Amino acid sequence: MFVTFLSDYGHNDDFVGVCHGVIARIAPDVRVIDLTHDVPRHDIRGAAVVLRRALPFCPAGVHLVVVDPGVGGTRRAVALRVAHEDRILVGPDNGVLWPAAEHFGGVVEAVDVAHSPHRLEPVSATFHGRDLFAPVAARLAAGAPLAGAGEPVDPDDLAQLRLPTPHVEAERVYAHVVSADTFGNVALDVTHDQGTNAGLRLGASVRVNGTPATYARTFEEVGPGELMLYEDAYRTLALAVNRGSALEFLDLGVDDEVLIEP
Amino acid sequence: MFVTFLSDYGHNDDFVGVCHGVIARIAPDVRVIDLTHDVPRHDIRGAAVVLRRALPFCPAGVHLVVVDPGVGGTRRAVALRVAHEDRILVGPDNGVLWPAAEHFGGVVEAVDVAHSPHRLEPVSATFHGRDLFAPVAARLAAGAPLAGAGEPVDPDDLAQLRLPTPHVEAERVYAHVVSADTFGNVALDVTHDQGTNAGLRLGASVRVNGTPATYARTFEEVGPGELMLYEDAYRTLALAVNRGSALEFLDLGVDDEVLIEP
Amino acid sequence: MFVTFLSDYGHNDDFVGVCHGVIARIAPDVRVIDLTHDVPRHDIRGAAVVLRRALPFCPAGVHLVVVDPGVGGTRRAVALRVAHEDRILVGPDNGVLWPAAEHFGGVVEAVDVAHSPHRLEPVSATFHGRDLFAPVAARLAAGAPLAGAGEPVDPDDLAQLRLPTPHVEAERVYAHVVSADTFGNVALDVTHDQGTNAGLRLGASVRVNGTPATYARTFEEVGPGELMLYEDAYRTLALAVNRGSALEFLDLGVDDEVLIEP
Repeated sequence: MFVTFLSDYGHNDDFVGVCHGVIARIAPDVRVIDLTHDVPRHDIRGAAVVLRRALPFCPAGVHLVVVDPGVGGTRRAVALRVAHEDRILVGPDNGVLWPAAEHFGGVVEAVDVAHSPHRLEPVSATFHGRDLFAPVAARLAAGAPLAGAGEPVDPDDLAQLRLPTPHVEAERVYAHVVSADTFGNVALDVTHDQGTNAGLRLGASVRVNGTPATYARTFEEVGPGELMLYEDAYRTLALAVNRGSALEFLDLGVDDEVLIEP
Repeated sequence: MFVTFLSDYGHNDDFVGVCHGVIARIAPDVRVIDLTHDVPRHDIRGAAVVLRRALPFCPAGVHLVVVDPGVGGTRRAVALRVAHEDRILVGPDNGVLWPAAEHFGGVVEAVDVAHSPHRLEPVSATFHGRDLFAPVAARLAAGAPLAGAGEPVDPDDLAQLRLPTPHVEAERVYAHVVSADTFGNVALDVTHDQGTNAGLRLGASVRVNGTPATYARTFEEVGPGELMLYEDAYRTLALAVNRGSALEFLDLGVDDEVLIEP
Repeated sequence: MFVTFLSDYGHNDDFVGVCHGVIARIAPDVRVIDLTHDVPRHDIRGAAVVLRRALPFCPAGVHLVVVDPGVGGTRRAVALRVAHEDRILVGPDNGVLWPAAEHFGGVVEAVDVAHSPHRLEPVSATFHGRDLFAPVAARLAAGAPLAGAGEPVDPDDLAQLRLPTPHVEAERVYAHVVSADTFGNVALDVTHDQGTNAGLRLGASVRVNGTPATYARTFEEVGPGELMLYEDAYRTLALAVNRGSALEFLDLGVDDEVLIEP
C-alpha cells in the first residue's frame, strides 16, 4: 500500500523526515511517495491544483496533504473517501483536498480526525503533520477502517475550493491561470479540443490578451523571447516564452482571465 | 529494518543518492528514511539537536549521521549501541551522536569502524559517507553484529556534546536557544511545566529579555509583527514573531541565554 | 529490483513525485533510488558525468535519466543494455547515457522506445519523463524483455558523448576539468597513479596552470585561501581552495585543460 505525501514543509528542517518516521513506526510495510514538499508556504490553492493533477498518475492509496495555515485554529482535520478507485484523502479541511476529491467523483464518506484514536498524544499545537495527519494516514494505509478514524462529517459540510470556469465561444477562449511552474510557464484551464472548437489552429498565429503568439507543438518552433501557446503535459493549454517567463511577459497572476483569439 | 539518514550533503550533488545506492547494494531489503540533508554545512551541534528530537518518532534501527567537518583527520568513526530500544548510531565521533545517545540511556557498546571489515576499499579521504559510514550502517541493519563492525572503544572515551542547562526560579526562567527553523522561530530548552512553576501563565503577558510578548497557544492570538512565547511541536517553549522572525527580532544566536519573566 | 533516477527536474514542482507515482502504479515492488534531481537544467554533460560516477556504487538494475533539452524534437528516446552486470539504461539519446554505457563495456542491445507499448497514451509533448521514460523503466524493472520495449536500434547509431583525454608526460600532466561541485572543488580526469608517473609527490609543492599549490591529503594541510591538489572521493585528482572556490580562483570552466607540474 502506498501513501502519497504533499506539503509545504520544504527540506531545510526535519519535518518531512519525521513524518516518514512516524509512518514507518506505525505501518512498516507501507511505502511513501513524496509528491513535492516545496509548494509555496500556505498556498492552499496551489497545493490543491498539484494534488488534482498528480493523483491520476499515482497508485490508489492514502493521499496525505499538509498545507495548513490554520493549524491549531478552528479548521477541521479530515479523512475522506472518494467515489472512484477507493482513494482516501487525509489533511486539513481548508479546500486543499477538494479539487482532487471532485476529480474522483466527490466525497462519499468523511470523518473528523481531530480526536482520532490513531493520533499521537499529546497532539502539539503546531505540528499536526506529525501528530495527527501522518499517524492517521499510516493506520488507514495499514488497513484500519475509515469509520474508526474519527467522528463522521457530512460531506456537504466540507470546505470547498472552486476554481474559475473557462468559457469558450466562436473565435474567443476565456481561460484562467491555474498555476505557473519554476520557469514561468503558465498553465491554463482549457483543453486543446476546446481551443479547436473556438477556431484555434495548431501551427497558426493567435492573440493572447492582444499579444501575438504562435500555437506551437514544441519550444523549437518559436524564437527566443517569443510567446507560444501549447498543449502542456497535463493535456491543457499553456503559455510559455522561449528562454523566458510567460508569467512575467504577460504580467499574469493566478486566476487571472486570459483571452485567446485566433 | 530501517536506516535513518541525516547529513549536511544537500541535494545539489549526488552524495545522498550514492549513499542510498551503497546501502541498497549491501542490504537490498533495508529501507532508508531521510531525516534531512540540509543541516547547515559542518553544523555538528544543529545536527545533534535534530537527531535527538527526531529519533523518538522514528522506528528503532540504525541511525546514520554524516556531518563531519573533520573527515580525513584524526576524529574517530564509530558505531554505538544505546541502552534503550536497541538503537544503533553510526557516524563521526565528534559529538553529533551524543545528545541522542543520552536520550536513549547512554552508550552501552561502541566500536571504532575506521578499519571496519564492512568498509568499501579503498576508503577515500573525503567521502566517508559512501565508503565507511553507509556500508557499516547497511551491514548492521542487515543483521551483522556490532562487535564485528570494528575495534572496541570505551564509551567513556567518546566525544561528548553537552548543551547548556536551563535554570528556573520564582518569577524567572533562564532558558537557552537550542535552534531556529527556516522561519526564524526559536526553540528553547525549557518545558511548559517549568514555565508554569516560574509563574508563566498561558494567555498572559510575559517579558522575554525585557521585550513584551504573549504566552499564546496559536499564532492567531497575536498580531502581525508581535512576539509570542508558545509550546512548540517538541513540547518545549519557543519564540515566534507572527509573520516575522523571532531570531532577528531579538537578535539571538544558538546557546544564547534568554530570560523570561511573568 | 531497483530503478535509479537522475534528472534536472528540481524539487519545486511535482515532476519527480509524479514519475515515482507512475513507476509505483506499474511496478509496485520496484524501489526507486534518487541519484539527484538538481543537475543544472539541460546540462547533458554534467548529468553524464554524475551517472558514470554514481552507477558503480549502485545495485545493477534499470537506470533512468531525464535530462532532455530536445524533448518533443527529433532526438531518439532509448533503452540500452550494457555489456557488464546486465544493467539497462533508459533516457533520451543525446549522449547523457554514453559515458556510463562505456564504463560498463559499451552497449550490446538498444531499442527506440518512442512508440513503446509501455508508454502512457497520449504521450505529452513535454513530459516524456512521466509518459515515456518512467513507464518503460518500470516495465523493464518488473521483468519485461528489452526487445519488447521498442524498435531495435544499431548501437553504432547512438549519440556519443566523448570527454577530453588527459595526457601525461615527464614532469607534466595535462588534465581537464570534468566537473565542479557546490563548493567550487574541481574534479580532474587524471588519477593519482598518473600523477605519480609524471613526478607529482604527495605532500610536495606543485604548480597548477603556473599557480603554486600543495599536493595534500586533507584540507587541514593547507591554510585558508590556499590552493591544493588532492585525490578526491572518485579516486581522481581534484583541486580545492581551503574555505574558497578553486573554480573561481583559477577561473576554470568545464573541459578546460589544466597543466600540473611538480
